[in-house]
Formats: sequence, structure tokens, C-alpha cells
Amino acid sequence: MTPKPLLKYLLALSCSLPLFTSAQINPKLTSYVNPFIGTGAVKGSLSGNNYPGATVPFGMVQLSPDTRDEPEWDAACGYDHNDNFIAGFSHTHLSGTGAPDLFDILFMPYTGDEKTRAGNAQQAGSGYGSRFSHDHESARAGYYQVKLDDYGINVELTATEHAGFHKYTFPKNSQGRVVIDLNHSTKKPNFGCHVIAAQFHMVNDHAIEGFRVITGWAKLRKVYFYTEFNKPVKSNDLIDGGTQYFDQKLLNGTDLRAVLNFNTGDGSPLLAKVGLSTVSTQNAKLNLVTEIPGWDFNQTVAQANAKWETELDKIKVEGTEQQKQIFYTALYHTCIQPNNYADVNGDYTAIDYTVHNSKAGFYSTFSLWDTYRAANPLYTLIQPQRTAGFVNSMLSQYQAYGYLPIWQLWGQENYCMIGNHAIPVIVDAALKGIPGFDIRKAYEAVKNSSTTDHPGSPFKAWEKYHYMPENVLTQSVSVTLEMAYDDWCVAQLAKKLNKTADYAHFMERSQYFKNLYDTQSGFFRAKNNDGKWLSPFNPLQYGGNGGNPYTEGNAWQYYWYVPQDVKGLIALTGGDSKFTAKLDTFFTLDSKPGEVNGNASGFIGQYAHGNEPSHHITYLYNYAGQPWKTQYYVAKICRELYNTSSSGYAGNEDCGQMSAWYVFSAMGFYPVNPASSVYVIGTPVMRKVVMQLPLNKKFTVLAPNSSADNIYIQSAKLNGKAYTHTFITQQDITSGGTLEFVMGPKPNEHWGVALADRPVK
Amino acid sequence: MTPKPLLKYLLALSCSLPLFTSAQINPKLTSYVNPFIGTGAVKGSLSGNNYPGATVPFGMVQLSPDTRDEPEWDAACGYDHNDNFIAGFSHTHLSGTGAPDLFDILFMPYTGDEKTRAGNAQQAGSGYGSRFSHDHESARAGYYQVKLDDYGINVELTATEHAGFHKYTFPKNSQGRVVIDLNHSTKKPNFGCHVIAAQFHMVNDHAIEGFRVITGWAKLRKVYFYTEFNKPVKSNDLIDGGTQYFDQKLLNGTDLRAVLNFNTGDGSPLLAKVGLSTVSTQNAKLNLVTEIPGWDFNQTVAQANAKWETELDKIKVEGTEQQKQIFYTALYHTCIQPNNYADVNGDYTAIDYTVHNSKAGFYSTFSLWDTYRAANPLYTLIQPQRTAGFVNSMLSQYQAYGYLPIWQLWGQENYCMIGNHAIPVIVDAALKGIPGFDIRKAYEAVKNSSTTDHPGSPFKAWEKYHYMPENVLTQSVSVTLEMAYDDWCVAQLAKKLNKTADYAHFMERSQYFKNLYDTQSGFFRAKNNDGKWLSPFNPLQYGGNGGNPYTEGNAWQYYWYVPQDVKGLIALTGGDSKFTAKLDTFFTLDSKPGEVNGNASGFIGQYAHGNEPSHHITYLYNYAGQPWKTQYYVAKICRELYNTSSSGYAGNEDCGQMSAWYVFSAMGFYPVNPASSVYVIGTPVMRKVVMQLPLNKKFTVLAPNSSADNIYIQSAKLNGKAYTHTFITQQDITSGGTLEFVMGPKPNEHWGVALADRPVK
Repeated sequence: MTPKPLLKYLLALSCSLPLFTSAQINPKLTSYVNPFIGTGAVKGSLSGNNYPGATVPFGMVQLSPDTRDEPEWDAACGYDHNDNFIAGFSHTHLSGTGAPDLFDILFMPYTGDEKTRAGNAQQAGSGYGSRFSHDHESARAGYYQVKLDDYGINVELTATEHAGFHKYTFPKNSQGRVVIDLNHSTKKPNFGCHVIAAQFHMVNDHAIEGFRVITGWAKLRKVYFYTEFNKPVKSNDLIDGGTQYFDQKLLNGTDLRAVLNFNTGDGSPLLAKVGLSTVSTQNAKLNLVTEIPGWDFNQTVAQANAKWETELDKIKVEGTEQQKQIFYTALYHTCIQPNNYADVNGDYTAIDYTVHNSKAGFYSTFSLWDTYRAANPLYTLIQPQRTAGFVNSMLSQYQAYGYLPIWQLWGQENYCMIGNHAIPVIVDAALKGIPGFDIRKAYEAVKNSSTTDHPGSPFKAWEKYHYMPENVLTQSVSVTLEMAYDDWCVAQLAKKLNKTADYAHFMERSQYFKNLYDTQSGFFRAKNNDGKWLSPFNPLQYGGNGGNPYTEGNAWQYYWYVPQDVKGLIALTGGDSKFTAKLDTFFTLDSKPGEVNGNASGFIGQYAHGNEPSHHITYLYNYAGQPWKTQYYVAKICRELYNTSSSGYAGNEDCGQMSAWYVFSAMGFYPVNPASSVYVIGTPVMRKVVMQLPLNKKFTVLAPNSSADNIYIQSAKLNGKAYTHTFITQQDITSGGTLEFVMGPKPNEHWGVALADRPVK
Repeated sequence: MTPKPLLKYLLALSCSLPLFTSAQINPKLTSYVNPFIGTGAVKGSLSGNNYPGATVPFGMVQLSPDTRDEPEWDAACGYDHNDNFIAGFSHTHLSGTGAPDLFDILFMPYTGDEKTRAGNAQQAGSGYGSRFSHDHESARAGYYQVKLDDYGINVELTATEHAGFHKYTFPKNSQGRVVIDLNHSTKKPNFGCHVIAAQFHMVNDHAIEGFRVITGWAKLRKVYFYTEFNKPVKSNDLIDGGTQYFDQKLLNGTDLRAVLNFNTGDGSPLLAKVGLSTVSTQNAKLNLVTEIPGWDFNQTVAQANAKWETELDKIKVEGTEQQKQIFYTALYHTCIQPNNYADVNGDYTAIDYTVHNSKAGFYSTFSLWDTYRAANPLYTLIQPQRTAGFVNSMLSQYQAYGYLPIWQLWGQENYCMIGNHAIPVIVDAALKGIPGFDIRKAYEAVKNSSTTDHPGSPFKAWEKYHYMPENVLTQSVSVTLEMAYDDWCVAQLAKKLNKTADYAHFMERSQYFKNLYDTQSGFFRAKNNDGKWLSPFNPLQYGGNGGNPYTEGNAWQYYWYVPQDVKGLIALTGGDSKFTAKLDTFFTLDSKPGEVNGNASGFIGQYAHGNEPSHHITYLYNYAGQPWKTQYYVAKICRELYNTSSSGYAGNEDCGQMSAWYVFSAMGFYPVNPASSVYVIGTPVMRKVVMQLPLNKKFTVLAPNSSADNIYIQSAKLNGKAYTHTFITQQDITSGGTLEFVMGPKPNEHWGVALADRPVK
């Protein structure tokens, strides 16, 4: 269960892939990506819910093993490193979400003889899975390999943006089979998930196509596929539930499996290429033949690797081997989503179930409550073009749906979590001047999304009560705090566009958080619409996702959520010293009464790094003149709550947010207010960082003596000049330059403490 | 509850619609259409499950009142003449089916003041319906009117192919409102019916658009709409479940209602035009503005009426006023479906949930187990162009789905009933030389649909056992008989295309019915795949739709289902006299042991005119030399089991089949074998029939002395020459000509009895 040492990992690669041996000479950055990090808890510890399969940056296809027939909440990505069984390889996955969905078009090779062919329908009920061992499993960016112990089959997988490429090496003299399962993952109670309609169509003896229309966490998804094999299908068994159809060309139903039989006795590999589309089998075919026209598996592996290298190359770091593995795997994870669901010709199924077309692509999987905090700000630095694509995709939901995404999955809104955090993402992109979208349309969208009542967003009540009453909308304290932040973002864009009245109005709304501040308890507390505090109150009491004023957390954790007005929060708390004292208590108070929400993990006192509400809190010491405490806790988290094991994350990866936290923090700064263009300095973990930026600019962070001992900033220079601010700006970075730190084992309690040096004065 | 006399009906029309008063001077054929016929059982008798609303021939929109919030099996068309409550007016309905579905986009006008506006959300739960009385209700082809007693609102409705047109006359000084309900009809257990997603979007103060995506009898339907009003929407309340949103532009959800408030105090009518589409709101708008560009309600009524006049004008009849009402209402009902679901630009959502385009339209609602018997043969005579459209639409399912429709609803297969009766429909059209489709593609489709295993059609078992074993597929006797008939149809097309081997093979399959003939009991009986008769056996025992060898009937009713080889059936029975004696018993034996299936009704002995398996049986006497008994029973059914009341049908109308039976039989002949181009002569009910045919041909049937007493054919002439055959052919009809009958009160037991005169020699 321990993570693979890099050497063993590279060795495995060199055996299976001659192309890649060059990596040993000039190690590519992709060689530091270990897709097994975060794939499974070690001895009851924590995991990221990451999957190890093959994908390309921001691609629609994530081809990965599912270690359960019916992946549930605890293996929402489909894979758990603790399992020793593989049900098959499905083409779509979510990276580190709390809820399971997708798992489309499962392929599984197996072996059998003619005699057992008649038993395929019976076997369908129990699956075609195989045991496997991590000893015979490997993965890197864009490539996954495993030996299926029950069949002796070596499986290799790679991917393009819209297609998966499978390579199955069967034992000699075996009768090779491939089952395609269109009902995989649906036999569980979550979200009433079930297949409404599905189809297989044997196009010819080398090709099969089909689709499944399925309900789930995404209300309704259409998934079309087109598959080609390098060998002819000798015979096929199409199966609907318990009924088997021999050598039939076509089958419609809801519980469909296809078993395809091949001549594999000569030991030459069976290759399968699978194109996906949300629109039609024709488009799935177009995607496939465009992206994988030939049969050179290694070439596709190399192309996937090159795409990853291009993305990772945007940030070059120096540090320990372990740090580089953590860093580049984290950077890799941030680029797994959002996913471009548009076909190569631009077609995609939109939120109103009509076909739209966008030549620039259409991105989905917006886990915004998580990613607006750090993942999206990171994209503004290293993915400006895609950031415009994300914004335009979110604006297209606004056009068709009337408001921006809250949690968009497969192009559809599932209303998961609270707030409207497409707003900070879009405002941040607009204020940073990311080109490629219409800033006026963006303003229309963020404003209307802040005034149009919709599920989880009763703005008329917000405007009426100036806080969110718990009896109007549960999770009301968290909602009030996060809504006030979103309002501040709207105000900033209004200001930029000289919309004075709007600016004033939304700035007023951004202060509503104060209406839930209870001076007596010293916490943000819930009220009903009668204006009275809800009692009893216990600041340690946890809420989940409803029925309690706090979202996946407690009053202690939500106390700190005023990123738009930390100064105001400090004032409410009673000034700097009371504020830092309260932070000290927060990081040391480890009582956990009642049921701790499953998302809360990675504790330091009340701080829970495993969930997003805590993510900015370590950085708040800077605002009150004690930056060395920020440095202490950030270093502690970077060095203790991330590692290279399958348990390398302190909680769900959440579509890149846990990784983005590390990427930023390891570089030395973090976007506490993610739409402010300001990054608050923590402590650099890497000895050197070079960020490649647009217009051929480079931003370098040097901390040559950073180490596990030297976690404290002694002094800093920006572009050669002494630098005492505990923050840097977007412009500091994008203009290019060098930020240098001298680190030491003891706090320098004079650096960065002056009022003028603080992120907010 | 008694039907409206024609005079009262015409009077009502003349009051409300000046345009139509001309009908009193030169009665149009549409004046004989009484849409209330068959809309509700009178005193526990029978009904056709017809709806009285407004539609145009073969149009997508059927705008009709729903007298229940949740129409169930017993009011599957949405309307029961026994009800005194209207829930609203929805835009899509099924005419006389056994199962409920559609009921899309319900509109309901009502009145209320500002004070009660806040109560709309509460009211949403209980509905906005109103009481009504048949005294203030009227309908004709393409027009429906009712006074809503609770509100004093006069509602008038008309339709085009893709749009509904509403005219609401509110009381003076009232506050007029219209609710649009997107969740109407879903709160019932049938087929797991529920809304997956829905949307309202206030386009401007005169327009609202939206959609609902819904599961049901059709697995998944997308219904988009676009509505324009002639008055501005003063204010709106959008409602999702129990939550009300005031004056919001847009709402997404699953339990959606929109309440729109208008200034109606001046008493001028509020007009609403509603376009529908399966593709998008844009297409719904295109449909609307193309078909109803202006605001002239009366003009749309007149256009709808003219369309109906064109269809009805294809058969001119002379008879009693009541006979003409029955006849033209029946002819009207045959033209309500199949429906053209393609938008005016040809777009439609196909069976694989992709958007297809067919400039010639795309027809759906194929209740083929019912309509292949007589409705489709009728279309070959008076709707040849649409018949080609029907065939091409069915072939497009074959292309996308691998086999032809069994029961196609809203473009989707629901596998209702047994057999593959698109085959006789297509073969019939091909053999009759209907132009406009590719006969070779048609053959490919019928052959592959007869060899590709699919739900309800295990052809490998059929080929293996040479009958359908009950333990392979239930309803096996009915399946065996109907499958054998379909096979005969395939053989006929194979023969025409000189596919000799196919012809021989399918002719052999068409004889498999003999393998279930039990000489001991003298009935078709079920076997399991062990080849043994299932026991005990009771020929009176009813089956429903599974779990019994007989489909919605018993062994007595299915005994007669060998239309492809009546001669063979006569031989099995033991010759003419045993055959006619068995028919005599059939029509007089009235025991009904066990539970009679709900579809069995309209009994004469074991004969059940209310369901399709019986429909051809009266005509079988002709095959055994006793045509006067055919004449007796056909006359009895025409004169006793059809009338002009709301209970005017002896059972479900079944999408035109009950009506087509009457249209044919009242003219004097019926397609016993619907793909043989042969019509068997019964007894003419009409004194004169003139059928307008392609190439400007006319076929006339004269029976000047036909009456309730004179039901027996004394002699006949075809084109002036003595005619003793008890059948005519498609060519006799389409060549044009005159068939004359002399009728009398007593059988002429010499006419039509010779072997040479029988439909099969």
C-alpha cells in the first residue's frame, strides 16, 4: 500500500514503453506525476478520491479502472487503492468528488472458450471482473497499465481528448473476449440513477457503436460511443438483462452488455479505440477518427505525455524528489478538469437538452464551491486561454438557464453545495483582464445570477432580511457568509464598469455577514426570519449539507469566511490581538462534539484541511501582523498533510482544489480573496519556482534554503529590492520578475508585520 | 349525458362563429363531425376514450380539455364526458389508447385579484380547475369551446399542425390569469412518469417559452413550447413546487407552474398562441410564427375546418343524418393520427435522441397492433401520400433502431402489444404500389425485423420450435398466430422482388400456426418448448397482456386469426360446414368465465367488437359460402355498436382502428387480410358512397335501398355488370367504377356462395 518509489516507477515504464526511456536521461516533468497519489486511504487515514487512469489535460475522456461494480460515495472516482478487484475500465470519471457519477461505457477483457459462451448472459449478472495486484500495475500521465490476474491479460490504456485507446495482451492460445457494459454503475440508490435507453450496433466486424441515456447526479446524460478494433470480431453475444442474443447486429434495452469474441491465440495485442460524444454516434466516430486515425498505441501514449508535459512545463520547480512528485501530481490533478465536452466539430448537448455548437469548445465539471478558491485563480495564471473557455461555457449556461453554474456536471446543473461561486471566478477573470470573453455579458450574468431567485439562492429573502434566515434556507450562516462574498465580487465588476449604483448596492449586500455576528458568543450564528438567534448554540457542532446553519463544518470553521473584508472581521473580533488569539485557539482546540461531517478531515485543532472552508485560514495571521504563524501552519500542512502515498491528500481532491492549494502554497503564496488579484504570502516550500506566463514573461520564486527546518521567512526581495509586504499582486506575477526569500528556523517577528505590509491595511 | 342533436350543435356554432353559418346553407361534411362521440360511457356502457379537443389532420398538436389532474387508464385521452370538472387544456393527447400519456403544456385561465396572488403557490397544489357543464360546451373539427363555470370564462380553442390557439373571454372587470402547468399529469404511478427537467422563460411581456423533459409510456420525451399573448403580461408568478417567485424572468425545476396576470377588465378576449417542438424552443417559435403569424382566431378556425373538409371530402356518403355523423366522425378520428412530429423545417428528435431532419415530415403514434387491420389499409386508399410518409417514418426507426416499430409513441418504441405489424402496413403499401418510398429498403426492413431478435420477437426460438413456446414468450398462441401472418406478408414482398428463397422460407414460417392446432380440443393451444400442450385448457379463459397464451382475449377469439390462409383454417376445422357452425357458436356462446380482459367489450356471443382480435371475424362466413351471415353480423354491429352518443364506440377507439372498421364496413367491404389488396364484401350501410381517389378516379358504391330492414345483399353489379364475388380488389377501387347493390330484408342464399365467388377459393 506504500507508494511506488520513483525509481521502480521509472523502471516499470522503461520496460513497457521504449519511447519513454529517454525520460531517464532527461527526466521529463511528467515523470514526477504519480497518478496513484490520493487513490486510497492507508490504514484508515485519508485519501483524495483520485483515480489513476489515463486522460489528457481537460479532456472529456478519463479512462480508468473501476474497482467496484457499483462505485459509491466512498469510491466516487471509481477506484480505491485498497481494493484488489477490477470490474472494468470505464471512460468517464470525476476526480475527487464527494458524490459518484459518470463511469460510462465500461470495457473489460477476459478469456473463455466457446463452451462457456452460452453462459455469458448468466455471467453478466455477476460481472466479468478480475483480481489484480499493485505489483503489476503502473500509471503515469496519460497512461495506465495493469495485469488482470484472473485472466493473465495485460491491459494498457491511454487517451485523447474525446477517445480512449485500449491495448489488451492476452495469454497465448487464449480465447480473448471483451465485454462492453452499458449498465455499469447504475444499480445503486444514488440520485435514482438508471439507464432510460441504451443501444449496441455492430457497425461491421471491426466496429461497434451505441449509446446510453442515463439519469443520476446529472439529471440526464446522453453518452454516445463509437469503437473500432484492430482485429475482427469473430462472434458477438449481445445481452439484455438475462437474455442473450447470438451474433445479432443490434440490440436496444436498458441492461445491455456486449461480449465480443476475438482470435487472440497468437499473442498479438488486441487494440480498441473508443470515441465518445454527448451528441451522436456519428460525432463519436468523428471524434475518434480525428484524434486517433491509426493504430499506433505508443504514439497516442507519447502524444498524451507531450500534452501533459506542455501543461506541467508552465511551472518548473526545484525541491526534493518527493516534493516534486507531490507538486507535479497536484498540478496534473488541477488540469484533469473542467472537461471539454464539445465534439471536435464543436457540437455539444447543452443544459436545455438541445445541441449547441462552440468551435472554441464547451467545458463542464465545474465544482465551483471547491475550485473558486484556488484552482480557478491558478488557471488565470497558467491557463488564461482555457480560463476564457471556462467563462464562456459558464456564460452559455447563463444564457440558456438564466443563472450561472453552481455545480455543473456533464453540462447540467446539479445545485450541489451553496453560493454562486461562478461569480468570483468570472469577476476574477474579468478584473485580471483575461482576454476572450465579453465583459459586459459577464457582468449581466453575474448581476442577474445575484438577483434571480433560484434553488439555494433566494435573493428576495436576502434583500428583505439582510441575512439568510435559517427557516428560509438552511445552512444559513454559511450561505450568508459566502453570498456576501459573492456580492462583493459583483460590486468589484460593477465598479470597473462604472455602474455606481450597482456597486453601492452590492457593496452593501457584501456587509450582510455582520448581521449574523453575535457579540455575545463571538461567532456567526443563525437567525430565523423573526430575527432571533437560534438556540442552543455550540460553536463546535457540525452541520452537513442541510438541517444545520453550517455547511460541512461548524461555527469555528466558518468564523473566518470574510475574505472580502478581513479588516472588518478583525474589528468585529476586537482587534489584531484578539483576532490572532482566536486563530491560535482555532488551530489548537481539538474537541469534536457531535457527528463530524464526513468531509471534515486533516485536522489541526478545529482547522480541517480536508475540506474547503478551512483552506484560506492559515493565511489570515498575515492580516493581523503575525505572518510567522501563517508560515508555521502552511509549512506544517505542506509537509505533513500531503505525501506521495495513495493516502497523499488529507481529504477529497475536489476537482483540483486540494491540489491547487498545494501548488500555490508550495510556491509561497495563496489567493485568500480569490477575486482580489492579491496573493497572500505563506512560506515557500520549493527551493525554486519558475512560472511561465503569457507574453513570454517568467515569474521566479527563490527560496534556496527552504527546508523542513527553515520554514520561516527571514527577509525577501522582489526584483532585487527588499520586500516586506506579506502579499504580491497578479500584476507582480504577470509582469514577470523574481521574488527571493531567505528562510530560517526561527520566526522573524519583524518581517511583514507593519500595517503597511499587510494584505489589507 | 345524451349526445347533442345535430341541430342544437349547429345552432351553437352559428352563435359563436358567424363564419360558420354558411354551413347551414350548404352543409359542409365537417358539420357531421361530432367530437363528443366516444368521449364517455353512458350509464356504465362503453366509450371510445376519444377526446373532444381541437386538432388538424395528422397534426402534432391536439389541444383538448383534461377533466382530471392526473388522467389514468380509464380516461387515457384526458377527457371523460361523465366528468364535470376541467383541470385545464393541454396540447397533446392520444385518441382512444388503453394507456395514458402526453398531456403536455397545460394552460388554464382563471380569475383572481391581487390579494390572492400570494396564494398561487398554495393553490398550485390543488389545481386551478373549474366546473363546467355540457350545456355550455361545443366542439367541431378543429374547434372546441367551453364555459368555465367557476370563473365565468368562455374558452375557445383551435389548432394548426404544430400550434394551439386559445381564446379566453373573461367576465368584464375581472382580473384574468393564465396558469401554465409543466408538471400536469405526472403524479401517478404509470410507467414511473416524472419530469426530469423543466423551464419557464419570460421572453418579453408578450411571450413565454420553456420545455419539459419527461419519462412515461414513451421512455423520454422533450417537449419545447413558445407562447405569445395578444396582451402584455402585467405580472407573473413562477412556481416550483411550493415556492413562488414573483415577476422573475426564468425558472428551472421539475414541478413548475407559471401564473400570468393580465388586464382583462375591458372584456376583450385574451388570445394565446402556443407552438410546440420536440427539438428546441427556437423551433417551437418557428413553428408558431410560420403557422399562426397573426391574431385572427377565426381565420385559424376556418383554416382548420378547411383542412378537415379536404380530408372528409375524399369520401362522400348518403345515409341518415345519424349515419353521416357516425361516418364522418369516424373518418375524422382516423385522421387524428399518426402525427407529424417534425417541425416546419423538418427537424425532429429521433428514436436515438439525436436530431434528424426530414423535409417530408416525420410521423409517430403508430398503434400498429390496432391500426394495421383497417386504418392503414384505409390510408392506402385516401391518404396515399401520407402512407408513404408513414412508411418512411417507420423505415427511419428501422435505420436507427434495427427493427420496425411495434408501438411508436412520440418517436419512441414502447413495445406495447405483440407482433411486428409495421410489416403488413409496409408490405401492403408496397404491393399496392404506393409511390414515395424505396421498396428495396422496405424489404430489407421487413426481413430484418423478422429475423433480428428483439423484445417480444424471439425469432431464433420461432425458427427453432416452429411455434412460440409459452415458456419462451408469454401470449404465445396469439404471438404464433400473428407472427405467422406477418411472415406471410414478408413472403409476399419477397415474391414481388423475386427473392425466391426468402419467399419459400417465410411462406413456411407463415404456416407455423398449424403447429399449435390441437385437433382434440379444436383450438389453437399453447405448448412449452417441451412440445407438450399446456393444461388445463379452457377456450373461454381470458388472457391479458402476459401470463396467458392469449392476448386480451381467449382461444375462441384467436381461433379465427389466420387471415393469410383462411382456406387452411377451414380445412383444419373440418370443412365449410364445420367452419360456419363454429362461427355460429362463436357468435352465440356468451359464457365469460374468469376475468374478462378490460379491453374486451361490445360482445356478440364470444365476439368482442371492442377489441381488435375480433374485427375481421364477421367477414369469415364469406370464405365458407354463407355471406348472408357476414351481412347479418356486420349490419348488426354497424347499427347497434356505433351511435352518436358519448358512448358511441363499443370500446377503445385505438388510434383510428374502431373508426376505420366502421368506415370500411359502412361502405360495404373490409380488408380481412390487410396486406392482400382484397376487400371482403359485408353489407353496405350507406345508400351511396363516392370515394375520391388519386389520378382523379372515383369509386362509387350504391345501395339505394339499404336500411335497417334491408341488410341482405340480393344482387350486385360492378361497373354495370352482374357481380357475384364477395370481395373486390384494390385495383377495382383505384381504377374507379361503380359497385351497386340491391338490398333486401331476407338473405339471398344464392348470391356469392359459389366457390369461385369466395375471397379464397
